[in-house]
Amino acid sequence: MSNDKKFIQAITARDENFAQWYTDVVKEAKLCDYTSVKGCLIYEPNGYAIWENIQNNLDKRFKATGVQNVYLPLLIPESLLQKEADHIEGFAPEVAWVTRGGLERLEEKLCIRPTSEVLFCDHWAKTVKSYRDLPKIYNQWNSVLRWEKTTRPFLRSREFLWQEGHTIHATAEEAKERTLMMLEVYRDFVVSDLAIPLICGRKTDSEKFAGAKETYTIEAMMHDGKALQSGTSHFFGNGFADAFDIKYLNKNNELSSVHETSWGLSTRIIGALIMVHGDDSGLVLPPRIAPTQVRVIPIAQHKEGVIEKAQEIVNTLLQANIRVDMDTSDKTPGWKFSEQEMLGIPARIEIGPKDIENNTVVIVRRDTREKITVAIDAIQTELPKIFEEIQANMYNKAEKFLNEHIDSATTLEEMITKFTNKRGFIKAMWCGSEKCEDEIKYETGGAGSRCIPFEEEHLSDTCIYCGKPAKHMVIWGKSY
Amino acid sequence: MSNDKKFIQAITARDENFAQWYTDVVKEAKLCDYTSVKGCLIYEPNGYAIWENIQNNLDKRFKATGVQNVYLPLLIPESLLQKEADHIEGFAPEVAWVTRGGLERLEEKLCIRPTSEVLFCDHWAKTVKSYRDLPKIYNQWNSVLRWEKTTRPFLRSREFLWQEGHTIHATAEEAKERTLMMLEVYRDFVVSDLAIPLICGRKTDSEKFAGAKETYTIEAMMHDGKALQSGTSHFFGNGFADAFDIKYLNKNNELSSVHETSWGLSTRIIGALIMVHGDDSGLVLPPRIAPTQVRVIPIAQHKEGVIEKAQEIVNTLLQANIRVDMDTSDKTPGWKFSEQEMLGIPARIEIGPKDIENNTVVIVRRDTREKITVAIDAIQTELPKIFEEIQANMYNKAEKFLNEHIDSATTLEEMITKFTNKRGFIKAMWCGSEKCEDEIKYETGGAGSRCIPFEEEHLSDTCIYCGKPAKHMVIWGKSY
Repeated sequence: MSNDKKFIQAITARDENFAQWYTDVVKEAKLCDYTSVKGCLIYEPNGYAIWENIQNNLDKRFKATGVQNVYLPLLIPESLLQKEADHIEGFAPEVAWVTRGGLERLEEKLCIRPTSEVLFCDHWAKTVKSYRDLPKIYNQWNSVLRWEKTTRPFLRSREFLWQEGHTIHATAEEAKERTLMMLEVYRDFVVSDLAIPLICGRKTDSEKFAGAKETYTIEAMMHDGKALQSGTSHFFGNGFADAFDIKYLNKNNELSSVHETSWGLSTRIIGALIMVHGDDSGLVLPPRIAPTQVRVIPIAQHKEGVIEKAQEIVNTLLQANIRVDMDTSDKTPGWKFSEQEMLGIPARIEIGPKDIENNTVVIVRRDTREKITVAIDAIQTELPKIFEEIQANMYNKAEKFLNEHIDSATTLEEMITKFTNKRGFIKAMWCGSEKCEDEIKYETGGAGSRCIPFEEEHLSDTCIYCGKPAKHMVIWGKSY
Repeated sequence: MSNDKKFIQAITARDENFAQWYTDVVKEAKLCDYTSVKGCLIYEPNGYAIWENIQNNLDKRFKATGVQNVYLPLLIPESLLQKEADHIEGFAPEVAWVTRGGLERLEEKLCIRPTSEVLFCDHWAKTVKSYRDLPKIYNQWNSVLRWEKTTRPFLRSREFLWQEGHTIHATAEEAKERTLMMLEVYRDFVVSDLAIPLICGRKTDSEKFAGAKETYTIEAMMHDGKALQSGTSHFFGNGFADAFDIKYLNKNNELSSVHETSWGLSTRIIGALIMVHGDDSGLVLPPRIAPTQVRVIPIAQHKEGVIEKAQEIVNTLLQANIRVDMDTSDKTPGWKFSEQEMLGIPARIEIGPKDIENNTVVIVRRDTREKITVAIDAIQTELPKIFEEIQANMYNKAEKFLNEHIDSATTLEEMITKFTNKRGFIKAMWCGSEKCEDEIKYETGGAGSRCIPFEEEHLSDTCIYCGKPAKHMVIWGKSY
């Protein structure tokens, strides 16, 4: 049993030191590893398999709305990055520059893409000519690089994986519709597949993407009460289009400007999965996204017929399209249970000689640890139901946590006290000025505006900071 | 009808100027577009969709052999790239260097990965400790960058998309087995799904990958008789493992060295698809890989009921998992036919008022242009059969071409004459010396050794160049 203990002790308790707990889970669940280049990670098989499932589930949703996948280059010439003023101002301090190719010094520096708006615009400026060429609804799955100073696995790294969608449209209305449509795709995916409840809304001007007219966001609450911006969708109007001279002839043969959007979701979301659902035994993955949904663990596997029966069950489940594996290593059952829990596999099947005698197995849920005895020939019909229950339970638990950790305030003092006494978000009214936003963040020790939620409430008439007439209700919180 | 002509005239005849024909097809089929960075392409929706299907079909095959996907960083520190002597010698002249991050000059230059052997080795050196950790069977789908001087779409670009598999094993035998297993996966995929016949074999020492002990290859013949190396699999022995000090404790508790492989297939293969199957009307795609397998083109679509009936057919085919689309644009039918042919869509369905009266449609095969009248309610059962016939016919046609363009020679004069008079490959005996290889390439105006095929023949006793005893039969040819 010494092996068991060693494994379990490897991670810090979640409520003792959340940051250390997070690092421990990432390491022990073998999600990623560090490299000799700061902020550049190795996504190990366990971590990458989660990303592959995210890609598959999201890509299907994209394509159902008419998205076409493309791939644009890694490198952007300096002159191209500089074409849109707000954009270069936002990204210049955090890009990496290629200055040598082969044995030669380059005439013009090339940056590694931090995002690809300018590349899409450059392509469209050359290729779009008529209203017949519109809209363009493009997306790419790729890696981008931002030279961050402080980095943390998944949450903030220099290189990260994401998808970036870019679209152009004949009218502003159509572009706005697409901006909100993609936010809804993200919301539906994160809620349904990742079992993460969200607050959706619009970013204030100071929190907008560099160059955007409007930025919309889905915000999730981590177990420590901090916010994680989990996906964003931007409406650009024709700012980029005009900077890049993307013009088309409309039906009346007049030269018109296109309207643009972009939207992205990255491997940060894996950080959210960990920090929303994880517990002191490690990762807890929702069945819809888990690379392995159930692990079969034979008990007394050296006894005759145990592994054979376990293998039969595995085969049956594979045929039922359940993502199953089996652990027949020479470790103890206790060690295997700990590992399955650490990896967040939603359920395990325990099967030993006695179970085989009774023609049953024990299914243990990862989320509640509930043990369910199931007849062997009912496993493939029972498991999908159990998965749905786990999925629903994980969402409900996270939603309860979210609701219990959103409060409201009508005075700055109340806000500060509440932020001091309890983790979470606070709703409060705001006048619309950037100065008040900054002051609130300063006074609360870092709680910034997360978003103006789609569902605003009228908490009071005046801004919580300056007392002038309030324009919006804002969700405030500390963030990753 | 003027529109039709304009479209068809846009491409050069294949046998008039093969290089120009290739460029025309790439452009007119909208597979990719150039950017302001030389050799860095935009993969447009039509091109990228082919790559997505290649990825899906190949990835399934990989996973069936136990491959796990991972993602390793884009950037490699200079010191890491230099650890294996042959490797750095091969790649140093063709990498791009990042020298600035954000606003700072980097202390150590970072290169953009030209391939990732050293990153995998660095990771394994830190993480592999025991025989229990072996084997590691990893793969990643990513982009790499090589600072090529001359570039051509898909065939040779600075940035290209590929997969690179990397594995380590306890024994040399197991590593060799994996090397050949993955070559067989490539062969099976290219033959079955891309309908491209292949010659498989081992590369001579001078054509090996930088750092490899053995390199195996699948070689395809393009319509101009040149070879395209379409996928390679390398056995490294423990050269890299020793350079990186990847050691594990074996079952007897002795420190041992791992044995390594790597294998890759890239977007070059899209070049092969174009140059093996394409014709004077454009691209011809095999049904198993075609993003759109059939296009429905309504005739006299303004007439009542035509588009409705066409849409019904589309819906039926979608439900039968056939990749179908429909062209209801305001172009003429002739223009639409030309476009469907240019894009290489394997079949089209023509349906007009008369067809509807007869309750039939006309299916036109892209490969043979054969017109087949089919009852409307039989389309979803007939089409899969037609696709299989197209797939088989395309393979057979390409195989016939390959066989008709492989000759053999026993003297250098015979070889030169044959290369001068006819495109294709020539089989000839070789003594094993690099000098003879070089001389043969020089004398034939560029025909290098493509591979020592798995199925060697005994054509004569002596090397075709130096007359010394022959060790192998080699396939010689010019190449991309």
